[in-house]
Amino acid sequence: MSKLRCQISISLDGFVAGRNQSEENPLGEGGERLHDWVVPLAAWRQSHGEQGGEVNASTRIFEESLENVGAGVMGRNMFGPVHGGAWGDEPWTGWWGDNPPYHYPVFILTHYPRDPVEMEGGTTFHFVTDGIESALGQAREAARGKDIMLWGGGKIAQQYLAAGLLDELELHVVPVLLGDGARLFDNLGGAKVQLEQVRAVEAPGVTHLKYRVVT
Amino acid sequence: MSKLRCQISISLDGFVAGRNQSEENPLGEGGERLHDWVVPLAAWRQSHGEQGGEVNASTRIFEESLENVGAGVMGRNMFGPVHGGAWGDEPWTGWWGDNPPYHYPVFILTHYPRDPVEMEGGTTFHFVTDGIESALGQAREAARGKDIMLWGGGKIAQQYLAAGLLDELELHVVPVLLGDGARLFDNLGGAKVQLEQVRAVEAPGVTHLKYRVVT
Repeated sequence: MSKLRCQISISLDGFVAGRNQSEENPLGEGGERLHDWVVPLAAWRQSHGEQGGEVNASTRIFEESLENVGAGVMGRNMFGPVHGGAWGDEPWTGWWGDNPPYHYPVFILTHYPRDPVEMEGGTTFHFVTDGIESALGQAREAARGKDIMLWGGGKIAQQYLAAGLLDELELHVVPVLLGDGARLFDNLGGAKVQLEQVRAVEAPGVTHLKYRVVT
Repeated sequence: MSKLRCQISISLDGFVAGRNQSEENPLGEGGERLHDWVVPLAAWRQSHGEQGGEVNASTRIFEESLENVGAGVMGRNMFGPVHGGAWGDEPWTGWWGDNPPYHYPVFILTHYPRDPVEMEGGTTFHFVTDGIESALGQAREAARGKDIMLWGGGKIAQQYLAAGLLDELELHVVPVLLGDGARLFDNLGGAKVQLEQVRAVEAPGVTHLKYRVVT
């Protein structure tokens, strides 16, 4: 069966976003430092239509996030303002330009119903208003046996973790102390989540810790 | 100059002790799971006067904690009831029997003045009532150029970290979610702590993450 996989960058003190998250800055204050390990990678730049960049031990980790994935699930905070709102007249279609780096259907959890948006390069954004199980069900069907990537933010990851629906969690642990913000392992509501360490990969400025969720 | 080093086991969600810590159970509920990686090691058992045990990638990490250390600093919660109290008539001399596994002077931060206690095997417990800088100063003198090991608990580690006195922090990250308890990276009072990743070592049921504190 296809797996629901989550990868997320996290500060050493457990935050996946800094304080004062907003629509304009979903990563909060200082949160962009969580991505310092990935943005310089040649593999990341290439997937975002850019040239050049570094190759190091994180390259393989990033490449794996692109492999055998047939659909995605994303929170509304990561996607941006589903309903338009303060963002002008054009309907918002995410942060990633006309050709987003997904190239598969992405199911976005939101309270605002909206028709699917077909982008270039195989990405279609679907908007799901009836909860995480429905989004996962639709994603699983769309993935046709491949895995489903659970993109952030942290709140969505928490919900899938607490519901026992997550199969694999890979944390990119960054040597930064944010001090405040959104914690990944919060709001689990006493859910007994059991993890098994799969591997650890040391890379420049980050360690990648992969766990299997055992239920 | 000799370094102040701290090693501490931490749950994946950032706790160094579970909820309901007490004198009888300083690790709190579920906290003993944080040490599951070290207690079975032959190297650990040997240092506690026991035979047998495992050898794996954690062995070297544990052995390093014994090397080039000339003194220790410890919190009163880790040592136990300095003032005796509910523990009967005999003065409390720690959890480690007559021959504690330190074999160097250990400076214990407490509010209760008490004469030093000389144990077997080179360990002497000194009780320091005038704060963390004094304890570090005394330990540094006693260490005669060797490093100083900062033993827990988490509160003491926080205080040294916030004061900019810690040189090296090694976290033994255990795939356990405690959900509640004592967080290591709490109460830093807005101190700007900068960390540099030194290395990551994968081992059975734990990953060892070592950081240099940059000031």
